[in-house]
Amino acid sequence: MKILVIHGPNLNLLGTREPEVYGRLTLAQIDQKIAATAKTLQVEVECRQTHEEGKILEWIQAAPGGFAALVINPAAFTHTSVAIRDAIAATGIPTVEVHLSNIHARESFRRHSFIAPVAAGQISGFGQESYLLGLRAAVTLASSQSEHSS
Amino acid sequence: MKILVIHGPNLNLLGTREPEVYGRLTLAQIDQKIAATAKTLQVEVECRQTHEEGKILEWIQAAPGGFAALVINPAAFTHTSVAIRDAIAATGIPTVEVHLSNIHARESFRRHSFIAPVAAGQISGFGQESYLLGLRAAVTLASSQSEHSS
Amino acid sequence: MKILVIHGPNLNLLGTREPEVYGRLTLAQIDQKIAATAKTLQVEVECRQTHEEGKILEWIQAAPGGFAALVINPAAFTHTSVAIRDAIAATGIPTVEVHLSNIHARESFRRHSFIAPVAAGQISGFGQESYLLGLRAAVTLASSQSEHSS
Amino acid sequence: MKILVIHGPNLNLLGTREPEVYGRLTLAQIDQKIAATAKTLQVEVECRQTHEEGKILEWIQAAPGGFAALVINPAAFTHTSVAIRDAIAATGIPTVEVHLSNIHARESFRRHSFIAPVAAGQISGFGQESYLLGLRAAVTLASSQSEHSS
Amino acid sequence: MKILVIHGPNLNLLGTREPEVYGRLTLAQIDQKIAATAKTLQVEVECRQTHEEGKILEWIQAAPGGFAALVINPAAFTHTSVAIRDAIAATGIPTVEVHLSNIHARESFRRHSFIAPVAAGQISGFGQESYLLGLRAAVTLASSQSEHSS
Amino acid sequence: MKILVIHGPNLNLLGTREPEVYGRLTLAQIDQKIAATAKTLQVEVECRQTHEEGKILEWIQAAPGGFAALVINPAAFTHTSVAIRDAIAATGIPTVEVHLSNIHARESFRRHSFIAPVAAGQISGFGQESYLLGLRAAVTLASSQSEHSS
Amino acid sequence: MKILVIHGPNLNLLGTREPEVYGRLTLAQIDQKIAATAKTLQVEVECRQTHEEGKILEWIQAAPGGFAALVINPAAFTHTSVAIRDAIAATGIPTVEVHLSNIHARESFRRHSFIAPVAAGQISGFGQESYLLGLRAAVTLASSQSEHSS
Amino acid sequence: MKILVIHGPNLNLLGTREPEVYGRLTLAQIDQKIAATAKTLQVEVECRQTHEEGKILEWIQAAPGGFAALVINPAAFTHTSVAIRDAIAATGIPTVEVHLSNIHARESFRRHSFIAPVAAGQISGFGQESYLLGLRAAVTLASSQSEHSS
Amino acid sequence: MKILVIHGPNLNLLGTREPEVYGRLTLAQIDQKIAATAKTLQVEVECRQTHEEGKILEWIQAAPGGFAALVINPAAFTHTSVAIRDAIAATGIPTVEVHLSNIHARESFRRHSFIAPVAAGQISGFGQESYLLGLRAAVTLASSQSEHSS
Amino acid sequence: MKILVIHGPNLNLLGTREPEVYGRLTLAQIDQKIAATAKTLQVEVECRQTHEEGKILEWIQAAPGGFAALVINPAAFTHTSVAIRDAIAATGIPTVEVHLSNIHARESFRRHSFIAPVAAGQISGFGQESYLLGLRAAVTLASSQSEHSS
Amino acid sequence: MKILVIHGPNLNLLGTREPEVYGRLTLAQIDQKIAATAKTLQVEVECRQTHEEGKILEWIQAAPGGFAALVINPAAFTHTSVAIRDAIAATGIPTVEVHLSNIHARESFRRHSFIAPVAAGQISGFGQESYLLGLRAAVTLASSQSEHSS
Amino acid sequence: MKILVIHGPNLNLLGTREPEVYGRLTLAQIDQKIAATAKTLQVEVECRQTHEEGKILEWIQAAPGGFAALVINPAAFTHTSVAIRDAIAATGIPTVEVHLSNIHARESFRRHSFIAPVAAGQISGFGQESYLLGLRAAVTLASSQSEHSS
Repeated sequence: MKILVIHGPNLNLLGTREPEVYGRLTLAQIDQKIAATAKTLQVEVECRQTHEEGKILEWIQAAPGGFAALVINPAAFTHTSVAIRDAIAATGIPTVEVHLSNIHARESFRRHSFIAPVAAGQISGFGQESYLLGLRAAVTLASSQSEHSS
Repeated sequence: MKILVIHGPNLNLLGTREPEVYGRLTLAQIDQKIAATAKTLQVEVECRQTHEEGKILEWIQAAPGGFAALVINPAAFTHTSVAIRDAIAATGIPTVEVHLSNIHARESFRRHSFIAPVAAGQISGFGQESYLLGLRAAVTLASSQSEHSS
Repeated sequence: MKILVIHGPNLNLLGTREPEVYGRLTLAQIDQKIAATAKTLQVEVECRQTHEEGKILEWIQAAPGGFAALVINPAAFTHTSVAIRDAIAATGIPTVEVHLSNIHARESFRRHSFIAPVAAGQISGFGQESYLLGLRAAVTLASSQSEHSS
Repeated sequence: MKILVIHGPNLNLLGTREPEVYGRLTLAQIDQKIAATAKTLQVEVECRQTHEEGKILEWIQAAPGGFAALVINPAAFTHTSVAIRDAIAATGIPTVEVHLSNIHARESFRRHSFIAPVAAGQISGFGQESYLLGLRAAVTLASSQSEHSS
Repeated sequence: MKILVIHGPNLNLLGTREPEVYGRLTLAQIDQKIAATAKTLQVEVECRQTHEEGKILEWIQAAPGGFAALVINPAAFTHTSVAIRDAIAATGIPTVEVHLSNIHARESFRRHSFIAPVAAGQISGFGQESYLLGLRAAVTLASSQSEHSS
Repeated sequence: MKILVIHGPNLNLLGTREPEVYGRLTLAQIDQKIAATAKTLQVEVECRQTHEEGKILEWIQAAPGGFAALVINPAAFTHTSVAIRDAIAATGIPTVEVHLSNIHARESFRRHSFIAPVAAGQISGFGQESYLLGLRAAVTLASSQSEHSS
Repeated sequence: MKILVIHGPNLNLLGTREPEVYGRLTLAQIDQKIAATAKTLQVEVECRQTHEEGKILEWIQAAPGGFAALVINPAAFTHTSVAIRDAIAATGIPTVEVHLSNIHARESFRRHSFIAPVAAGQISGFGQESYLLGLRAAVTLASSQSEHSS
Repeated sequence: MKILVIHGPNLNLLGTREPEVYGRLTLAQIDQKIAATAKTLQVEVECRQTHEEGKILEWIQAAPGGFAALVINPAAFTHTSVAIRDAIAATGIPTVEVHLSNIHARESFRRHSFIAPVAAGQISGFGQESYLLGLRAAVTLASSQSEHSS
Repeated sequence: MKILVIHGPNLNLLGTREPEVYGRLTLAQIDQKIAATAKTLQVEVECRQTHEEGKILEWIQAAPGGFAALVINPAAFTHTSVAIRDAIAATGIPTVEVHLSNIHARESFRRHSFIAPVAAGQISGFGQESYLLGLRAAVTLASSQSEHSS
Repeated sequence: MKILVIHGPNLNLLGTREPEVYGRLTLAQIDQKIAATAKTLQVEVECRQTHEEGKILEWIQAAPGGFAALVINPAAFTHTSVAIRDAIAATGIPTVEVHLSNIHARESFRRHSFIAPVAAGQISGFGQESYLLGLRAAVTLASSQSEHSS
Repeated sequence: MKILVIHGPNLNLLGTREPEVYGRLTLAQIDQKIAATAKTLQVEVECRQTHEEGKILEWIQAAPGGFAALVINPAAFTHTSVAIRDAIAATGIPTVEVHLSNIHARESFRRHSFIAPVAAGQISGFGQESYLLGLRAAVTLASSQSEHSS
Repeated sequence: MKILVIHGPNLNLLGTREPEVYGRLTLAQIDQKIAATAKTLQVEVECRQTHEEGKILEWIQAAPGGFAALVINPAAFTHTSVAIRDAIAATGIPTVEVHLSNIHARESFRRHSFIAPVAAGQISGFGQESYLLGLRAAVTLASSQSEHSS
């Protein structure tokens, strides 16, 4: 089983900017932690980051071929992208939405997610741990789904 | 007379995903239908699809040089792109906004279009037929406009 | 196949008042254009106009007996009539909502249609052409429906 | 004692359309049930249906002469008619508002009633039973009122 | 010069119901007062009342032929009729909107008038006097207009 | 057949406080009236009152074991309790919501009911009579349901 | 009988600025027209203008001593002054609110008047004529009031 | 290290009611799964359920004495309880909010959580898995906190 | 004369938690200060605290028997309890609402009080002093009331 | 210690107008009561009234020189003056906002105070007593502040 | 060329109060900086400050006689004064709105400016520099305008 | 010192389209003006334009390395891009937001800027001059910042 992890815009800055908000680990270090957890869970994982909404659409559209589930931190696109929502809905790939910070405790516009209603669920507020929990959730989702279809 | 048809994000998935919402024809098949109708109407047509808002801006900006009118299904960008609205307003190209599904019968955020106020008109809810009707509308618009300016 | 076309309140004034908004053709001339298009499409068409919401309800209720589909320009009733919405929903007749002007580019109260969610689709902004496109859409709708039920 | 029952627009379709929403009895059958209950309650009852708001106004204005109370299912007019509200308020006739379906469990615009604040009370959601309960309520209202004025 | 005065729904009840809100004069007595003022102003006047929106549309559409201006108390339709607004806008007849009660001091839904933006002005709160003032305003409007067009 | 009647917070004060709003009968007297009507309808009834939301949840959860339907006047909890809504939805017990006063004619916050969308229907405004009508409605609901499942 | 006319802020500019909105008469000319109408009506009138909210409060507070009624064009203060509202309510002086332009056909913030609910009525949209009509209304108000108190 | 798990109102029904929404496991079975995960994580856990807001307040107030962190599924109280929010804020106990269903994909009132802004984070939509992920998050939170304070 | 003081949920934590928001005195110390002030004012006072809305209802319902007035800090229930509002309105006991913190300077949801419209007045923002001022206000209220009824 | 008391617009009318809302004491009598309470509290007090927002700004700006705290009843300016808010914030003078009537039980626009968020606290609804309580609150505030700075 | 600079209410406190928000320069020092920049730009400048809305109206009304443009920091009046807006619109003087602080990053009510729509443009957030930039903008505006009219 | 100037989507059309809104200078000409002003201010400047949000993110992320401050006209992205806001906040680069047109005097959706709260300030409405003023503001910002850090 292979899980796709997508990091949205600006997440490449992790660890170097605003550590009091987003934590001190760099994105590379987080990806290593994700990989380590994946190993524990006996799944493969691939992590990608982009600033481009269009690239995220491509990745999501192509995902069902090679991945069993999606973990996505849409970052700023959470609040503005109907296109990512539509891509997830159209491909039907099991999706876990994750956020480093607690989006419900920040500016009011961050409380609305276009992605949440088409994701299986949402995890927010636990820093890097949000990704690791999200990976576990994605593996469970994908496993139960493959059971159902077998 | 040549008409530009722009398909927005995720429309490349047509026919393969959620056919109960968007119909069973692939985008290629729809483009063939559009071409057939264009032939009947004795106009040329060019169909393009992209996930990138920036590319749509380029196409719209360049359109007045080679095209008499624009038929656009902005898909998810309908509800989020002020930039496409501004491009249409700035170039002044006669524009028909089309939607496969009835956007007025879906989630409330889909009822608002940033594009509609700068388009000549909007056609939504008729599946592939929306494009064919949109093409007819575009030809009529372009014809009346060329009459006025001649 | 026979299509019913209903013109809502004040549309009898067409061509004589506010031509810059609604065009220069009279309602009679528009009805002739509709008839001509109907002939091309090899269908029958009947056009009626009224100022009375109650009469529109009667026409819609009676329509399934004699008509395969409905093209309606509810005019002012678009924004205020729940009764017409209920009549369309109750009879289940395939319905195309049309508007001469682009209702999405006018006063904000005109952007909301009580009819749209129960219509198959909506066409607005193309002047008389809205009716002709609406007629084509209605014929396609009715054809596909009669196929399904046969 | 005589009670007036007014059925609003589209209610003549009852039993023949959307039975899963409005039940399987025709309006005539409902009127028979109302009559039967009236007999049990030893009152007279008269049932009328119309699509015209103006006719409902006339009926309400004339009601105080011959009727002790009013049971009204304003249907679509519930949400759009200030005129019916004003007529009830002006005549002061004891009024019971009834609805077949549970208007609080449907589209949000159906939750607002212009009539409710001037009615004695509202009964919604019990199908034909709403009328029978409404009739009982109206009889009680009218009885207590005639006691007070005697 | 001839002025048309239109009384909307329920106004036939004037004087007999809720006199503390609407005053003690009957509609007939008000019409006599209007006629008397008309005489003073040396204009003709014709007063009509109806419960039907459709009839008001007809009267407005026909008015430009025989009347120089319109004084209208749309009553309940003030807050619900886009059709009357459209009729006034379409015919372009100089229009004065009047109200017996102070609509700005009642329920919040009565503060919004669909008619006001297309009327020349609005007079509310002076009981029968609102009509007499409205008639004066209408005469002034019609006079200045005839001067301009002469 | 046995029906459960639940009176929400503060209803024990009935008859002793604010009689102009809630009527002159005490809760005990109302319960006697309910019992008398139950006898007429040949059903059993049990009436309970509490100020505690938690107790209402317990009663609702336990109800399906011994009761065929629920008549509930949630009083203040109508407007604030998602938990009662969830309990009704979870147990699926046929439920009639009743109110002594006309909640649609009071403060605006009283117009919203969290309970209504999961109840079969709502009866409000008829004083004690609301309970008696509610009992009738509940019996009808329960009867039709037992028919369906037999 | 003596009537006080108060002109709010910026009205001293009348006739010299934005004549297409506010007309071509200067404030002095309007005051002459008011005086002429007062003479016709056999009342005295006094006209004052100020930019200061505090001065308007003083004038209103002192008015009951010398004036039978108030005609006020609060201009910009219409939309922002609770203090003027409170002064009118506190003194209880019969008040007519007037506006030169049709405030219901301008920016949305101009549709709300803090003054209207405490005035007897409002007249807007008739240019200078608004004052003359307002004076008539004020005289009628004051007359009926003195009748009542005699 | 010991973690407190609080289940809010109606959660005792789990597995027996609406399994398509909340899953097929009973609360006891979920508590066993939580205990099993706790064992894996080498922490102690105590699970409690109640329908009473007051009891939840007591448990939270007492928690800092014996527990390192709190996992809470406030169920219906999520949307209505300021008191639970205040208790969490006042005690400062590290808190993880969990939900079985995806609250962002249900009725709009369920999207607002009074608890989220004072919790460390929120996990919703993964059924029983939400608790297990929540437990992991709580352990991480408590561990990092004890590190900081040592 | 005896005054009842009710402290709502979480107020038992006073002095031990968040002293920068709520001050450093424990609830017991505040109660002593209240008692001291009561002595000065020559009245008796009884202070109670609870987390349970139901208990507060009981206390309020029973209060008129033994207490001349009520001082209540509803804490979190201020913003969520219609039931407490109804209890105060039903018993008619003179009520003073107090808050330690300035609720108008905190989160927006804290600015709305369900209690305020049925209380005589509200005092907020003065820490423990709010209670002492509230006690004085309550004594004055009760005194003036007993004068009126004697 | 000296306290400044500011009475806003229209408060000079106290006792002579609308006594059922604002009480029967004149402003002079209230000022005497304030002075008497000040004497009891062993502080000096100075009371001023004005209709001018600008004058209030001057008084507040100058206050820190001679006064230890401010008691202000901004009356109508409560709801409209950002300038007074800014003056209080800029000078940082300890401020108590008082209201004679219960502003939370009147028109909805009176519930919002621009002043409250920059005041230490708010007292409303106790008539003249509001001032006396406010004076006590101000003295306590000023005392604790002078302690802190010593 | 002469430019008028108007400082609104409370700005006389600059430099002495809340320097972290508004900077450390006094108003006199800012006026010197403005004068220095004016010299550089070879224009005259006159700076005035007032707390009175009425005075600002007078200054604006008189400005066209002696000044080519207006730089105004309306301070608190930005958000509350329709009168200043009307004065600017009526005189048509080229106007630059300036703010020391970034009004878009403060309380939400500060984001709305009544002045902005009638000003040529707005500059906010640069402290004293906002005035200097505003002066430059005003000079450019006035220059281009005098070119056009010559 | 080097300043980065970013032009957002569609700004390449400047001077060729809608000159009445955006002025007659081409983007190249504006860039020359910016360069000329930069020379005057003795700073370097680099101007870039793109239609791609992702490219703007890259430029902002890379800016702190080579630029002392940022002048950005986000054009359509002003109203829709949370990602640009986050990039500016994350990098902390001193930022000036500029707009050619007065965004506060256009469609209501243009009044909201996602960028403004994280920018130092905003300049709008002065055409090309907005850029020149913005450059001056940026230089001042960068200078004061380098002073503080030295």
